[in-house]
Amino acid sequence: MDSGLFTSLPPGAARLIDSALDEDLGTGDHTTSCLVRPGQRGEAVVRAREGMVLSGVAVAAAVFHRVNPGLEVKVSHADGSRVQAGEDIMHIRGALRSILTAERVALNFVGRLSGIATTTRRYVDAVQGLPVKIVDTRKTTPLHRSLEKEAVRAGGGYNHRFNLSDGILIKDNHIAAAGSVREAMRRAREGRPHHLLRIEIEVDTLDQLRDALEAGADVLLLDNFSVDMLRAGVALVAGRALTEASGGVTLDRIRTIAETGVDMISVGGLIHKARWMDVGLDVVGVGERTAAS
Amino acid sequence: MDSGLFTSLPPGAARLIDSALDEDLGTGDHTTSCLVRPGQRGEAVVRAREGMVLSGVAVAAAVFHRVNPGLEVKVSHADGSRVQAGEDIMHIRGALRSILTAERVALNFVGRLSGIATTTRRYVDAVQGLPVKIVDTRKTTPLHRSLEKEAVRAGGGYNHRFNLSDGILIKDNHIAAAGSVREAMRRAREGRPHHLLRIEIEVDTLDQLRDALEAGADVLLLDNFSVDMLRAGVALVAGRALTEASGGVTLDRIRTIAETGVDMISVGGLIHKARWMDVGLDVVGVGERTAAS
Amino acid sequence: MDSGLFTSLPPGAARLIDSALDEDLGTGDHTTSCLVRPGQRGEAVVRAREGMVLSGVAVAAAVFHRVNPGLEVKVSHADGSRVQAGEDIMHIRGALRSILTAERVALNFVGRLSGIATTTRRYVDAVQGLPVKIVDTRKTTPLHRSLEKEAVRAGGGYNHRFNLSDGILIKDNHIAAAGSVREAMRRAREGRPHHLLRIEIEVDTLDQLRDALEAGADVLLLDNFSVDMLRAGVALVAGRALTEASGGVTLDRIRTIAETGVDMISVGGLIHKARWMDVGLDVVGVGERTAAS
Amino acid sequence: MDSGLFTSLPPGAARLIDSALDEDLGTGDHTTSCLVRPGQRGEAVVRAREGMVLSGVAVAAAVFHRVNPGLEVKVSHADGSRVQAGEDIMHIRGALRSILTAERVALNFVGRLSGIATTTRRYVDAVQGLPVKIVDTRKTTPLHRSLEKEAVRAGGGYNHRFNLSDGILIKDNHIAAAGSVREAMRRAREGRPHHLLRIEIEVDTLDQLRDALEAGADVLLLDNFSVDMLRAGVALVAGRALTEASGGVTLDRIRTIAETGVDMISVGGLIHKARWMDVGLDVVGVGERTAAS
Amino acid sequence: MDSGLFTSLPPGAARLIDSALDEDLGTGDHTTSCLVRPGQRGEAVVRAREGMVLSGVAVAAAVFHRVNPGLEVKVSHADGSRVQAGEDIMHIRGALRSILTAERVALNFVGRLSGIATTTRRYVDAVQGLPVKIVDTRKTTPLHRSLEKEAVRAGGGYNHRFNLSDGILIKDNHIAAAGSVREAMRRAREGRPHHLLRIEIEVDTLDQLRDALEAGADVLLLDNFSVDMLRAGVALVAGRALTEASGGVTLDRIRTIAETGVDMISVGGLIHKARWMDVGLDVVGVGERTAAS
Amino acid sequence: MDSGLFTSLPPGAARLIDSALDEDLGTGDHTTSCLVRPGQRGEAVVRAREGMVLSGVAVAAAVFHRVNPGLEVKVSHADGSRVQAGEDIMHIRGALRSILTAERVALNFVGRLSGIATTTRRYVDAVQGLPVKIVDTRKTTPLHRSLEKEAVRAGGGYNHRFNLSDGILIKDNHIAAAGSVREAMRRAREGRPHHLLRIEIEVDTLDQLRDALEAGADVLLLDNFSVDMLRAGVALVAGRALTEASGGVTLDRIRTIAETGVDMISVGGLIHKARWMDVGLDVVGVGERTAAS
Repeated sequence: MDSGLFTSLPPGAARLIDSALDEDLGTGDHTTSCLVRPGQRGEAVVRAREGMVLSGVAVAAAVFHRVNPGLEVKVSHADGSRVQAGEDIMHIRGALRSILTAERVALNFVGRLSGIATTTRRYVDAVQGLPVKIVDTRKTTPLHRSLEKEAVRAGGGYNHRFNLSDGILIKDNHIAAAGSVREAMRRAREGRPHHLLRIEIEVDTLDQLRDALEAGADVLLLDNFSVDMLRAGVALVAGRALTEASGGVTLDRIRTIAETGVDMISVGGLIHKARWMDVGLDVVGVGERTAAS
Repeated sequence: MDSGLFTSLPPGAARLIDSALDEDLGTGDHTTSCLVRPGQRGEAVVRAREGMVLSGVAVAAAVFHRVNPGLEVKVSHADGSRVQAGEDIMHIRGALRSILTAERVALNFVGRLSGIATTTRRYVDAVQGLPVKIVDTRKTTPLHRSLEKEAVRAGGGYNHRFNLSDGILIKDNHIAAAGSVREAMRRAREGRPHHLLRIEIEVDTLDQLRDALEAGADVLLLDNFSVDMLRAGVALVAGRALTEASGGVTLDRIRTIAETGVDMISVGGLIHKARWMDVGLDVVGVGERTAAS
Repeated sequence: MDSGLFTSLPPGAARLIDSALDEDLGTGDHTTSCLVRPGQRGEAVVRAREGMVLSGVAVAAAVFHRVNPGLEVKVSHADGSRVQAGEDIMHIRGALRSILTAERVALNFVGRLSGIATTTRRYVDAVQGLPVKIVDTRKTTPLHRSLEKEAVRAGGGYNHRFNLSDGILIKDNHIAAAGSVREAMRRAREGRPHHLLRIEIEVDTLDQLRDALEAGADVLLLDNFSVDMLRAGVALVAGRALTEASGGVTLDRIRTIAETGVDMISVGGLIHKARWMDVGLDVVGVGERTAAS
Repeated sequence: MDSGLFTSLPPGAARLIDSALDEDLGTGDHTTSCLVRPGQRGEAVVRAREGMVLSGVAVAAAVFHRVNPGLEVKVSHADGSRVQAGEDIMHIRGALRSILTAERVALNFVGRLSGIATTTRRYVDAVQGLPVKIVDTRKTTPLHRSLEKEAVRAGGGYNHRFNLSDGILIKDNHIAAAGSVREAMRRAREGRPHHLLRIEIEVDTLDQLRDALEAGADVLLLDNFSVDMLRAGVALVAGRALTEASGGVTLDRIRTIAETGVDMISVGGLIHKARWMDVGLDVVGVGERTAAS
Repeated sequence: MDSGLFTSLPPGAARLIDSALDEDLGTGDHTTSCLVRPGQRGEAVVRAREGMVLSGVAVAAAVFHRVNPGLEVKVSHADGSRVQAGEDIMHIRGALRSILTAERVALNFVGRLSGIATTTRRYVDAVQGLPVKIVDTRKTTPLHRSLEKEAVRAGGGYNHRFNLSDGILIKDNHIAAAGSVREAMRRAREGRPHHLLRIEIEVDTLDQLRDALEAGADVLLLDNFSVDMLRAGVALVAGRALTEASGGVTLDRIRTIAETGVDMISVGGLIHKARWMDVGLDVVGVGERTAAS
Repeated sequence: MDSGLFTSLPPGAARLIDSALDEDLGTGDHTTSCLVRPGQRGEAVVRAREGMVLSGVAVAAAVFHRVNPGLEVKVSHADGSRVQAGEDIMHIRGALRSILTAERVALNFVGRLSGIATTTRRYVDAVQGLPVKIVDTRKTTPLHRSLEKEAVRAGGGYNHRFNLSDGILIKDNHIAAAGSVREAMRRAREGRPHHLLRIEIEVDTLDQLRDALEAGADVLLLDNFSVDMLRAGVALVAGRALTEASGGVTLDRIRTIAETGVDMISVGGLIHKARWMDVGLDVVGVGERTAAS
């Protein structure tokens, strides 16, 4: 059932799709209106043109449905699947005009998001076997955060908080405003909006780390620590809080960082270094409307 | 005057900024509310952390203003400027809470868009001295097309059409629906929505190119032509139409392609291969509200 | 299928219909709520009360569907048809409350738009046999431009550009700002947003026409030219650009203007002089809900 | 102060203006961006090009302000004024780009609405000296009802109800659904949403009129009555309810209808027969930005 | 049919429901996503946990449908029904995730609105047998007015005007602005927006009442009158206008007030003193998705 | 500065205010338009008509500013203040029309929200001296949650999570779906969206409590526990997790519950049992526009 497509998307995705179609359509897809007759039907395949981990497949399927709920869409490989160059991702059958009008927006979603999933998979693979989680950040494309975070999960990564309201994360500027790590922790503990939010705090030195730990931090963000400092930090914490390494994490260095024993490594680059994957749509059949349609 | 900030942005940018802030704020920036007092004032600098060509500076400035119209924002380097690592991009002064709440959204815009401008600049530099235009495509991030196209211009590139309604571009699937290049061109000439739109048509062979030219195409999209074929195509056209090369254009090959004499080279990678540039916000002063504020 | 109704409307029409219903409903159709029982069913016919060329029929059908997707709507004469007084345009069957609540908004669309189609048809008939196109302008009712342009096409006319972004049209005030026709053309050629847009320029004299032609204008807007000047202009252009006559075009004068050989005549009056056509809804049957409904 | 412009417009007008600008701008006013420099300033006058009664002046002024709050707008003749061909309506001074971008939308509002005011004035003048009110109907352009009703008032007319929720108006189809005039009146009296709404009922015969009057109707809509029947109806009512004549009212017949003594005559044609008035914008000065601006 | 759910709600209810779901979902119902498998199905019952008069049942049903149109919802007791503690209100069957995600928003509507219906019923019962109407006021929860007014009707009460535009109600501050009751009435009679609106005026003394009556008021709002004054007022009016008592009306005093013979008593407390009724959702069956679903 | 009003409100409050004004205005405040002249100025005071703890004062001030940014608004007592009957809450000075049009919406916000703050204060006072937090629930009025949660804080209470995405709270239905407390906890720990969210779980027996504790629950929701069971539960937990009592909490019983040593008591009734407080607006001066205004 169509509605199933939308209940599986994050909140707001239907609106995002509509706005994306508005943006691409302007006053109408004039080329298709001139070239394709209203009754003409077609069949098309969305294909991977290179190997990738998929994400955004359900969004792309929904794009076709928003343009025309009468299109039949069958997904061959769902989000999180690894596909090879040439493999089919989904088939679409119905009014050819609608297929061509939806094409670019659908591909833009699946290409972008699969890029993030594929990039994430590389980082995750690099730490295989180690008990560390690779997590994303709030460096996400405006209005695409929920989808990009899904893409990170499709690639085997984990998410950090979704927005400013679902976690307390005290950064250097907040500490500066409060005066000290201890005062910052005190204000956060007393002022936190509710008791289901943990408190994470960024520390730049082992001294700060000690202060934060004593002040009851739930998570310690070890920002730009050297590998030796990370190791010392993990030892110091000794399981009393979670530890997150961040800053300048590359594919080359990530395993070394993971081996320090930190619980999490946050990598903005899962999203901001991801290039799009190459996906295309091929029309594999063009026909006329049958009497019944 | 504040309104000046918005008249210089593309239509819809104010709404995009508001939605981006909604997305990042959720039910509120709880960390800042706990840690920073309402009256506290601050001064902050947005800085380039690597060399880049800037884009999105006006958007970032507008983000701060939307969060709090009382913030003073001074731009040091405008869109299109080349800055070095460590250079200032803008200064913000005012309510510290507002500065910290706006920070991430502002940086996400300027970091992403500067990535596109910087990538574009590399392609443009690679064809320096040649009379070719590097143009973008419709492979853009949903809801960010106008800004991404501005970023391409900031990097020295040119834009292709903005959406499906401001140009006729006949692709292979449209030709298949119409039956032939000649029939496709006939339909487009007769059905085009109005006389201010040119007709561009994708051709895969020199025969198609000849047909299209005779049928009156204004622009020929030479898709995935070899360098030899491009040269032959340009000779055949002999200035009677514009020529655009596309398909598999890399930084390595672009100069060779340009030397065939095509008028334009379209490169999706200006946008879909661009990683974000590294920009950060440093709070450089924290104070209390003065009596007058 | 219902969705078919909407894929045949211009982008944004569904939202326009919803807002129109909001406007007319206010807090509810209290008269119908008092007078008609929820279970009552009815059958109604929308009829032409005078001869006309139809437009807005699909929009009106969609209005009934937005009020209640359960209504059956059958269109007897589609947009562009010429109907006589008394002929049926569409039949609606279903919940009587919904039919009566939708009535006025549906009729307002089809009455207005048929007025434009009918007016256009008169102008188009006046130049029958001549190779000229009658085109509209941007003097359209705010938020109704796409529908009004469809109405012009339903009446046999052609459209000019849809908005400020899908064509360059340099008017006298732009020339004044640039300083001269040549400088205006130079700026437009260098600054045009992309290569699929043609450049049209308004000229008031034959000298300006010559300058514009030499500077590479694609279309020349001959504004308020006398018939003699139009003839001279057409001769001067000699097919090297398109010519468009505008200004003070009336039904009386249009054939004479067309005979000068201009390619197009733009007529704001297709829209701004059109009175509405008279269409009405008659309830032709009232019943009770059957068990199955 | 700017806000004053908006408090004097009907609710929703600011949103209507914004949407109208979105519609006309598309992805941007490319012609103006190419041709006019950002710093260039100008002065423009909106002028009547024929005699008219003005309406929409405040809306047009607001259009300029929405495009750029920095524009200075001075209104010379407010809504309801009668102006001659050539008279100034308003002056605008400021950024030339903004003036040119706003021009068409501003003129479309004032031209359309002045057409309605001018048409209304003709009907009102035709019954001069008689104690009758000329009122409009719900045959209004979708989304423009409040403004069109203001235009009717500007022309000396009066308004009928604004939408389906601010008055009970029982039409022939409602009577058919209820079974009789008496039953319709009974349901309306019992079911009316609240006691501040009067009940008006359409009658086609004097018998129906008698029934309605006895059943307590506040207003009687005498639909398509002959002049003799109108006179008889007015006599029968004898001031116990208001009377409204409707149907086929033309400028020729209106005085005769008014002389029957009806309290109101409703005329859809105030709006649906109104052609637009001719108003234009002239740039009367072009300069550069001064240091202080 | 699903759409039936929405045609029976007041205009705007679908949007209100969507916004309510956005508010409660934030970035997603993470608990349910973790705990319940996508394929899991369930059956749930909404039950009254105390005796009450129902309102908001159709809204609650619509909430489940908006979350997932595939849910089957059966209503056992409609709005206006009196139910005992433990009675079923509606059954829902389908995807368990969707049921749990919709639960709180659905209950918040039906609990709040049933509180208003139940409270209203108490006031209405207190005046049983007397020819008085208990009416609400504009003291309603922002954005919930239409639903709250439906709840008042479900409890046997009547509505006062819905908003500032569907009735003239002159209050003390308006009289102060006009200078006197007579001048206020004169301005209202001449300036009223259309002839289907009655004029109600607030009076504080019997002298004002006399003035208002002579000036043609349709309804007299006797504000904060003592019982003796009310009786005198009703005698004075003698059926020539409607009378409405207001101010400090409690359940204890309402019968005494009603016995004075006023036509209406307006009671803000129907809404602003209503506590919510206790309604809960019990999952009565949990299963797996069958092959056919 | 005006903007300050909005930066102190929760996200989305400006939109909520605009919609509330749309709801109340309909097509316009016709009474005020008839009765008050455009130039008339006035001064008004919002006053408490009974003792209360204030909340919604900033929202009410913002309502006046949205209607007319030119109104001067001075707040005498801010949110959280305790005021006596007759005390001033805020003064407004400016265009009388705007003051009267904004009045009802402004009062509806401050009256409702102060009711919640005042009710909360009673519960909070009842546990004075005990180390327990009184917290709210998700039983809040749709679209008013952020404001109602502010009102709870204004009354000395604390908030529970804001929506379904900022905390994991496993209820009985979730446990049923998962099969057991242990399995539910396992799924939550593995599937939680990110590491800054704690896990709370509802338990109905001491056995469940033990399971949940061993499975690593951060917070235990002791639902409908007797006072003895609560005491036993607190002893069992022994500080290893937070404890929250809920279910049937009344003002009479709350101190006894608090004395069991639970960390939090959640009380839906802070919001759903709160009646509105009585606040009114008095016009204290009416004048004419001075030359300068």
